[in-house]
Amino acid sequence: MTFRIGIVGAGFLTRRALLPAIAAADDLRLVAVLDSDEAALRAVAAEVPGVWSGTDVRDFLRTPLDGVHVATPNRRHAEYACRALARGVPTLVEKPLADTVAGGQWILRAAMASGAPAMIGYMSRYNAYNRAVVELVRSGRLGAPRSIAACHLGHRQGDWRNRRAESGLGCLGDLAIYPLLTAADVFDAAPTACRATGYPAGDREQTEIFVEATVWFGDERRLQVESSFTEPPETGVSRYTVVCERGLLVVRNSWAMDSGGSVLVCDERGRRWLRPEPVDPYLAQYRAFAASAAGQPVPVEVGVARGLRDLRVLHALERSVANGGVRLALTGGQNP
Amino acid sequence: MTFRIGIVGAGFLTRRALLPAIAAADDLRLVAVLDSDEAALRAVAAEVPGVWSGTDVRDFLRTPLDGVHVATPNRRHAEYACRALARGVPTLVEKPLADTVAGGQWILRAAMASGAPAMIGYMSRYNAYNRAVVELVRSGRLGAPRSIAACHLGHRQGDWRNRRAESGLGCLGDLAIYPLLTAADVFDAAPTACRATGYPAGDREQTEIFVEATVWFGDERRLQVESSFTEPPETGVSRYTVVCERGLLVVRNSWAMDSGGSVLVCDERGRRWLRPEPVDPYLAQYRAFAASAAGQPVPVEVGVARGLRDLRVLHALERSVANGGVRLALTGGQNP
Repeated sequence: MTFRIGIVGAGFLTRRALLPAIAAADDLRLVAVLDSDEAALRAVAAEVPGVWSGTDVRDFLRTPLDGVHVATPNRRHAEYACRALARGVPTLVEKPLADTVAGGQWILRAAMASGAPAMIGYMSRYNAYNRAVVELVRSGRLGAPRSIAACHLGHRQGDWRNRRAESGLGCLGDLAIYPLLTAADVFDAAPTACRATGYPAGDREQTEIFVEATVWFGDERRLQVESSFTEPPETGVSRYTVVCERGLLVVRNSWAMDSGGSVLVCDERGRRWLRPEPVDPYLAQYRAFAASAAGQPVPVEVGVARGLRDLRVLHALERSVANGGVRLALTGGQNP
Repeated sequence: MTFRIGIVGAGFLTRRALLPAIAAADDLRLVAVLDSDEAALRAVAAEVPGVWSGTDVRDFLRTPLDGVHVATPNRRHAEYACRALARGVPTLVEKPLADTVAGGQWILRAAMASGAPAMIGYMSRYNAYNRAVVELVRSGRLGAPRSIAACHLGHRQGDWRNRRAESGLGCLGDLAIYPLLTAADVFDAAPTACRATGYPAGDREQTEIFVEATVWFGDERRLQVESSFTEPPETGVSRYTVVCERGLLVVRNSWAMDSGGSVLVCDERGRRWLRPEPVDPYLAQYRAFAASAAGQPVPVEVGVARGLRDLRVLHALERSVANGGVRLALTGGQNP
């Protein structure tokens, strides 16, 4: 049976990653795309013959859809996710869940009120290298994980991710969120406190373009992360190191949009590479989405409640930046 | 007048960086090279016709020399530096000053007892991009510097830098030292406390191959640094970001052995590149060394007392690693 997908947003993510993932699978089909940008719609329609494309959300939602993927700027996530869920359509929302915590709460309420499953687009969880890291750490062979040092640095200039009104979170929501998700997976724990410095801090129009942050997962474990929009174009750094009691893991590129990556394991036996079979993370995500639409429970780590928890952490980091790097406890409302 | 240089150590640094720097300058000449490795000596002699090369330190020191450059594994720095200084020969010691604090103290005592100047080989201080960063920060145009996030990651496997007996400090002494020097320059302050986690911790034979550390320069300023020997060969990451009150600087490759680098400035006026004239850091270092040998005072930031201070910080980081990441105050004996 073919799973019919409607995408809200015909931007970079859709054209670069979502269309190829759908095209690669016989059992997935893009049937509708909604955007206010006519040129972007034409670009998608040229690639996907027969797709419905338009600017009217009511027409979009009248198309027979098995699932809606909200892939707009963060500011619009809540609006489209709530409309789709209100119609009972299974909904996948890009990360971060929303621009504001209030927006995330609306989505959670809509999901609870809807009979349809709702999921957050944490594509990096499907990357084979990240999965291999989590599996190795949980096996206990390297001892308990103690700290993670991560860099996720990219180039953004002049697009919506830089503007507070559309993004809400700048590089925190666009890039730093990946190390946060990875740390929660690796530590198998919820964040308990955080602090951050960034630039510019507290600007009303422009979001942070550089952030350096610490997130604690209990007293014993911490993530140290640097994230930025200030790299030169075409370069970028995407890496993390997990320090365990008896070894370490050096991971590169596993948050990238492609299925690339590498994992080097260093322990008392020496150094060796993990070589899992790569998978397209967006294709794997659509299969998980289709399974939930077909009745399987949404895994807690990609549920919207988890998305809201992570959104609260990102906003706490933003508050820390605006308040000179003060350490903030993350208590209550942080689960699951 | 030609400045006649004798180098102890015919290894990678000498052949890759020191010989080209000397060859590029009419007023510098390599007159002697000492090593226990005959093949390494032959490689140098083939490149520098007429150079004295041999394995006997007494013969080496009987060659007429205007300055000795100690470029051996860390374990041998004190021995050769003290011998040269005892003969009254101006001496340049590679960083870190020594493998142990005791070794560094011997060098400092020998320097104080000698009439000859002694200097530490902090080549990164001569890099034009690092200098441009310090100049811009000290101008005050970006406000006070608050934090530095740095990565200096490389590949080392099976060479002396991995062995505690020869290196003493692993990636701390080989790579993490550069961000430490940069932070002291940028903050214009001495380190006051530090903590670190690393792997392997407390191994008697192998040095740390991964370290993640925080160094405080007073209560308000901190360096966060990740350093490793675990990168794949031929890659490596060398970068730092300086966060000031009203802007940030993103610096790449300015600790590399060549004269490369880049500096991106981000502030309320937008983004722009600093484009200083590149210089060969090793050539600039030899010119500073020759000037000191000719009677100019050794700049405090490349004096052996400073080298000893930095060595104490590296060993404090090593103690923190061995003690589960405990924060250690750096008090007394830390100046200049």
